[in-house]
Amino acid sequence: MMKVTYNKQLTALLVIDPYNDFISEGGKIWDRLKTVAEANDCIPHMLQVLNAARKAEVRVFYALHHRYRPGDYETWKYIAPIQEAAWSHKAFENGTWGGEIRPEFEPKPGEIVATEHWCSSGFANTDLDLLLKTHGIHKLIVIGLIAHTCVEATVRFAAELGYEVTMVKDATADYSDEDMHAALDINIPNYASAILTTKQVVDSIASL
Amino acid sequence: MMKVTYNKQLTALLVIDPYNDFISEGGKIWDRLKTVAEANDCIPHMLQVLNAARKAEVRVFYALHHRYRPGDYETWKYIAPIQEAAWSHKAFENGTWGGEIRPEFEPKPGEIVATEHWCSSGFANTDLDLLLKTHGIHKLIVIGLIAHTCVEATVRFAAELGYEVTMVKDATADYSDEDMHAALDINIPNYASAILTTKQVVDSIASL
Amino acid sequence: MMKVTYNKQLTALLVIDPYNDFISEGGKIWDRLKTVAEANDCIPHMLQVLNAARKAEVRVFYALHHRYRPGDYETWKYIAPIQEAAWSHKAFENGTWGGEIRPEFEPKPGEIVATEHWCSSGFANTDLDLLLKTHGIHKLIVIGLIAHTCVEATVRFAAELGYEVTMVKDATADYSDEDMHAALDINIPNYASAILTTKQVVDSIASL
Amino acid sequence: MMKVTYNKQLTALLVIDPYNDFISEGGKIWDRLKTVAEANDCIPHMLQVLNAARKAEVRVFYALHHRYRPGDYETWKYIAPIQEAAWSHKAFENGTWGGEIRPEFEPKPGEIVATEHWCSSGFANTDLDLLLKTHGIHKLIVIGLIAHTCVEATVRFAAELGYEVTMVKDATADYSDEDMHAALDINIPNYASAILTTKQVVDSIASL
Repeated sequence: MMKVTYNKQLTALLVIDPYNDFISEGGKIWDRLKTVAEANDCIPHMLQVLNAARKAEVRVFYALHHRYRPGDYETWKYIAPIQEAAWSHKAFENGTWGGEIRPEFEPKPGEIVATEHWCSSGFANTDLDLLLKTHGIHKLIVIGLIAHTCVEATVRFAAELGYEVTMVKDATADYSDEDMHAALDINIPNYASAILTTKQVVDSIASL
Repeated sequence: MMKVTYNKQLTALLVIDPYNDFISEGGKIWDRLKTVAEANDCIPHMLQVLNAARKAEVRVFYALHHRYRPGDYETWKYIAPIQEAAWSHKAFENGTWGGEIRPEFEPKPGEIVATEHWCSSGFANTDLDLLLKTHGIHKLIVIGLIAHTCVEATVRFAAELGYEVTMVKDATADYSDEDMHAALDINIPNYASAILTTKQVVDSIASL
Repeated sequence: MMKVTYNKQLTALLVIDPYNDFISEGGKIWDRLKTVAEANDCIPHMLQVLNAARKAEVRVFYALHHRYRPGDYETWKYIAPIQEAAWSHKAFENGTWGGEIRPEFEPKPGEIVATEHWCSSGFANTDLDLLLKTHGIHKLIVIGLIAHTCVEATVRFAAELGYEVTMVKDATADYSDEDMHAALDINIPNYASAILTTKQVVDSIASL
Repeated sequence: MMKVTYNKQLTALLVIDPYNDFISEGGKIWDRLKTVAEANDCIPHMLQVLNAARKAEVRVFYALHHRYRPGDYETWKYIAPIQEAAWSHKAFENGTWGGEIRPEFEPKPGEIVATEHWCSSGFANTDLDLLLKTHGIHKLIVIGLIAHTCVEATVRFAAELGYEVTMVKDATADYSDEDMHAALDINIPNYASAILTTKQVVDSIASL
């Protein structure tokens, strides 16, 4: 695997879906993610990477899933199974606590929030690519949820669009070890130029 | 020019930027559009087309320009002149009357509002293409503002993406007759399969 | 899982990467795919689905990987690992037998070949979405190679773009059962509305 | 208008459609472009800019229109008027002299040719955005044909995608002065951050 380097002009941190429904006690999907997330210290790691980026002035971007709103999907003729599931669970319902960002991950002034994505990729049908380009970004450090759906989708799209991706492997989580393995060991190595630990990434960022 | 036909399954009305800042007395840009808009009865025509679509159950979509919010553009390294202008005028400022849709054009339940666009095309960096596809739409009837910027951009992108476009030539307006002429007579005829009057479109829709 | 139906107006068969390098004895990657491909009769199944589509006049589209040409990638600053691998192996080298379509899968007149894709998704940076739209297609039946790279990527992008996808699970192959499992059982069920056998798909198509 | 600066790492020259059919004596469309093109020395200017870029090692990209091939468009349900025209004229017919690049503009090794575009924008349904990104490009200097169709479309899309554009106003041409005026004076000023003469651009590039 190539040696990836970072610099503040070209590099951004991309935080995917840090919603209460995913990563807070009491969130709709937390119980399904908890075992994996607690085993690898996912939430503290996400926070360490975020804080390191903020301290080093590496710009932070957010890719957020569509928050469920009444009427969504009702008129669609074509819908993917993962969207049917989001519809039936009302995941990240707009105006509810579950659809809010977990407080420690709340975007700060100067951090960039892309428009919400309808399916899994933070790039599909959003302004994420535009916002990265208008800031001159070519290298992404990716953290967040869920490894084999939104994270993998966003990493795949990033590579297709020409971005160089670093995946932080202990700052993500999934429903099971098998799902994590599919994402981190089978698929993402084809698209991410580096797959690193939180410690490795924090050290790299700190030296910028 | 080919003879365009419509049917309810494949056809949608696309309403572009019916903001108070554009089309209401007192709006920030209204004074610059007023002469052309009053000469061709733009606003009443837009309303006639919208009402005809609603009555015939032709689905209605909205393409809306990004509403200015504090912090926008400040960190961008690259920005187009039309965005610099929007930035300096705070066009469609979020939370203000100018950034609201003129009341008669307010979306109704079952009508689809795409995410806001940052520049001129309703398709660029938004979910408009996705939402049209999930509803099975291939034919667009286009009305709204401003002819040579957002309207022309959206028509051009629609054609590039494979949609069949009808432009309603007296349900749009511009800063000057020359700008209207550039849009309606020079450019849009290359991309729209039909350029019709409100009367022609309303008659066609009414017969569906 | 929803019950998927097909009709000739809305449905297309999408054939992914039927190159000699992948699916012919002597191809550069065939030895790595052979075990899985022979176990599930991948190639005969692909051919059965293709013939059924042709007989029923379901339109056929091809998504083909970029054929290696001298100079490719040499000037790129950013490149994904899977592209580095394609570069070093000169996969599907232009002008060589390995970069030709296996003869039984050669496109016939009226079948549509999208521009070549650089990474894994048949949609990324190609005209596939345009060509599907100009033909009125909303439903895709997907066959081809390799399950967890180009096939999964294309299925994911199709769902993100609003297409309804059927995956033919025994008309694809991979390097290992584990890779197949990751694609067919873990990831694709989130994005494909149906995952069927060749027999099921051929029967459905035959009844159109 | 902002003061645009260039540097070799971020800047590329984009040459649009330098086909014999457009810019060579005997080309299918040359007679319609000749008056404007000869009045502003379009072809010599295009060549001066190209040579300046090559000398300064500013990377050169080509956006080329789809070359007509038998069968094209025949099965399309939806088609834009400009594509119907290209179809009926067999513009840039593949395998003919008219579909070849005029010899002085032939790409050299290390210059990048995007996949062909079907309509007017060099970005729509092509790999141009990817190829610019993989080379780290954010600033485009645009020359070529035709001002109000492919050139304007490509400039508009470039701005929508976040690129900073310089238009070289005497290195393009059109059917009439009115068409040139619509492109150069009415529309492109909204999307290009600078509209310069060949002399100005050549001087800027020479100083890099």
